[in-house]
Amino acid sequence: MTELISAVEAHDIRFPTSRHLDGSDAMNPEPDYSAAYVIVRTSGGQEGHGLAFTVGRGNELAVAAVRSLAPLVTGRPAAEVLADLGGVSRRLTGDSQLRWLGPEKGVIHMAAGAVLNALWDLRARRAGKPLWRLLSDLPPEEIVDVVDFRYLEDALTPGEALALLRRAEPGRAGRLERLLAEGYPAYTTTPGWLGYTDDKLVRLAKEAVADGFRQIKLKVGADRAADARRVRLAREAVGPGVRIAVDANQAWNVGQAIEWLAPLAEFDLYWIEEPTSPDDVLGHAAIRRQVAPIKVATGEHTHNRVMFKQFLQAEAIDILQLDAARVAGVNENIAVLLLAAKFGVPVCPHAGGVGLCEMVQHLSMFDYVAVSGTTEDRVIEYIDHLHEHFTDPVVIRDGRYVPPARPGGGAEMRPASRAAYAYPHGPRWTASAAAGGTGKERP
Amino acid sequence: MTELISAVEAHDIRFPTSRHLDGSDAMNPEPDYSAAYVIVRTSGGQEGHGLAFTVGRGNELAVAAVRSLAPLVTGRPAAEVLADLGGVSRRLTGDSQLRWLGPEKGVIHMAAGAVLNALWDLRARRAGKPLWRLLSDLPPEEIVDVVDFRYLEDALTPGEALALLRRAEPGRAGRLERLLAEGYPAYTTTPGWLGYTDDKLVRLAKEAVADGFRQIKLKVGADRAADARRVRLAREAVGPGVRIAVDANQAWNVGQAIEWLAPLAEFDLYWIEEPTSPDDVLGHAAIRRQVAPIKVATGEHTHNRVMFKQFLQAEAIDILQLDAARVAGVNENIAVLLLAAKFGVPVCPHAGGVGLCEMVQHLSMFDYVAVSGTTEDRVIEYIDHLHEHFTDPVVIRDGRYVPPARPGGGAEMRPASRAAYAYPHGPRWTASAAAGGTGKERP
Repeated sequence: MTELISAVEAHDIRFPTSRHLDGSDAMNPEPDYSAAYVIVRTSGGQEGHGLAFTVGRGNELAVAAVRSLAPLVTGRPAAEVLADLGGVSRRLTGDSQLRWLGPEKGVIHMAAGAVLNALWDLRARRAGKPLWRLLSDLPPEEIVDVVDFRYLEDALTPGEALALLRRAEPGRAGRLERLLAEGYPAYTTTPGWLGYTDDKLVRLAKEAVADGFRQIKLKVGADRAADARRVRLAREAVGPGVRIAVDANQAWNVGQAIEWLAPLAEFDLYWIEEPTSPDDVLGHAAIRRQVAPIKVATGEHTHNRVMFKQFLQAEAIDILQLDAARVAGVNENIAVLLLAAKFGVPVCPHAGGVGLCEMVQHLSMFDYVAVSGTTEDRVIEYIDHLHEHFTDPVVIRDGRYVPPARPGGGAEMRPASRAAYAYPHGPRWTASAAAGGTGKERP
Repeated sequence: MTELISAVEAHDIRFPTSRHLDGSDAMNPEPDYSAAYVIVRTSGGQEGHGLAFTVGRGNELAVAAVRSLAPLVTGRPAAEVLADLGGVSRRLTGDSQLRWLGPEKGVIHMAAGAVLNALWDLRARRAGKPLWRLLSDLPPEEIVDVVDFRYLEDALTPGEALALLRRAEPGRAGRLERLLAEGYPAYTTTPGWLGYTDDKLVRLAKEAVADGFRQIKLKVGADRAADARRVRLAREAVGPGVRIAVDANQAWNVGQAIEWLAPLAEFDLYWIEEPTSPDDVLGHAAIRRQVAPIKVATGEHTHNRVMFKQFLQAEAIDILQLDAARVAGVNENIAVLLLAAKFGVPVCPHAGGVGLCEMVQHLSMFDYVAVSGTTEDRVIEYIDHLHEHFTDPVVIRDGRYVPPARPGGGAEMRPASRAAYAYPHGPRWTASAAAGGTGKERP
């Protein structure tokens, strides 16, 4: 009997992180890190796991969106679906009625990404490989085939993408060995949350350097005086040889960004992240021209490949921060990696959240082995939150990600955690409703 | 006792329009025109009506998003809410957890627009005025106050907006009289749906001219030969003095748009609408440079004011097509009208759908009376679908919109229609499930 995709389940999982101000920044003062968690099941008993990351309220909408997309995949032969993930991607993002809700943006697009990531996870498990290895072993033609080049061809054609990938082929084996031996560079945002005291910031910044990190990141944008003080403390704590990035989480308009950054420049900032609206390509370009040599970085809220294309065309960014769970999954992220390689812009993924470190490392490692072929000026974000809930948590050694060896894409959450943090009826929510968290009324 | 906002209800209303191919275009072959329909209720028994328009599947997500936003408004004093719709707008679009789902785009943003439009409807009813009149009578300071200028200030400051509005004040009374006497120019898309036969196209095009329309619009982008034939037939039918716009509904990439339009130029096309991805500001600019004198128009999928700002800054469009139900309601549309006035680009709203004609006419009439001060090269789209379901359906006379006189914003649907087309349990759906429509499985 043909094995079918028998179910696409969506689960609402939330962690009450707002209680400790982990993850606090200028725009997200009290997030409850959450996931619209997807399990794709086959009639043969196999599973694939994926998720869309949110910060609390609204996670129910991402869950509902997965359920709205589920009929586009459910009931189809598993082998056929997994052999044509390019076609599945186009079906999920191109449904003629559902695409009105985007197109290719917001809740419906994040949900498409979660489903696609679960399918890639399933495919990697069936191949017995970690996702980064599965992708790195694919022939260039198949990589090009999973990408939707619609609206990209003025910047990157399938032929150019193929040439890029072929150019990287000769060195694959050597880079694979080096990756396994040395890992992939990371930076840490752990010291820099806005809700932390100065003492905690200094202590965590020193620990980061001691742990081998060569870059840390601080949240800024809520208070000018506090930012200057915190950046100075951080620079004193880490010394001159460690990069300090700052992240405004969209707090400013174009003029404010330029003004706010001027007095911080003396502390040798490496990049400014999300200085303004994530939709404002031209605004980022204007900021970049004014704040150099501070680099401009964005991407965690960039909703699709068409926006990334424009950030690159407009020379609006120095650093491209793709996100495993914002765009339409592995497929669209491959498009973004190819665009970045074409334009010569380094990709430094957004991570943290729920499972983003576990997922996004696969994309960077694939990029190194098979696309850009370099880790020069490339770092994956690392935040030490919530990894204990995953079956294959990231391993950081000397400030570098150790390549995962277990089959799959990294998103699988431990069943006990899924049960405990199920919202709103899991025991971690019912037992502590009085302690606050995402369900409460806004003031 | 203080009158409160006692409820924000959301209803799933769908019309099985796919059965007759009304509304068929290159990207929407079989839409079921739908609304996430909002009723705001007060403890005093008053109601405000608004909606988010969708094309079928996925309407349930817009409905769910309204429910997720409802607690931000429910339970507050009605007078206080209605006196500070700027503050309410910022609360709905800026909730620190919900904004992660956008920010300011997709389902959550459309839902915010539906709630805001319902609140404006309520405010207009309480004032006993049609919305266009309410807005036209507001002092410039109050208009500026309802706009969120965040991320706009590199293009338009509150001070500049105030100056624009003050400049328009002296002529308000005269334009008001002229509007009441002459109405507002319209164009019609009724002849041009892709699913129609050539005979039907020609017949409807001739009827449009006979009815007084000076512009029609045809859908293109599915078949090159058919497009050339249909545009020729339309030009022969309407004669040289009537404008013909074409609408590709995002069918092309940048190069395709330029190639596809070249052989159509001989038929004296007025504008090309949505030639490519609605996110592609730079792509529209490139197309515009190549296809002049054909004008480039877009906006019905432009998700917020930051995108409109860039379309204007990049000189990417000749015609700005705002939509009553895509962005965050009246508030954000006022921002867009102000931006367009600053850049001197005419606004020709998108309409059709479910209730969009009824809603958007208020914005254009307000623009004429109090913002741009002109109807030169401005037309509101008109499509003769589904008006019978509204309590105050648009009135078109000699190809012009007659200003509505009844209090409110135009979105109120007749209770009998709401009951009949409730999805999935209304009688029009339960009685005809076998006839197809949005609920069916995709092939």
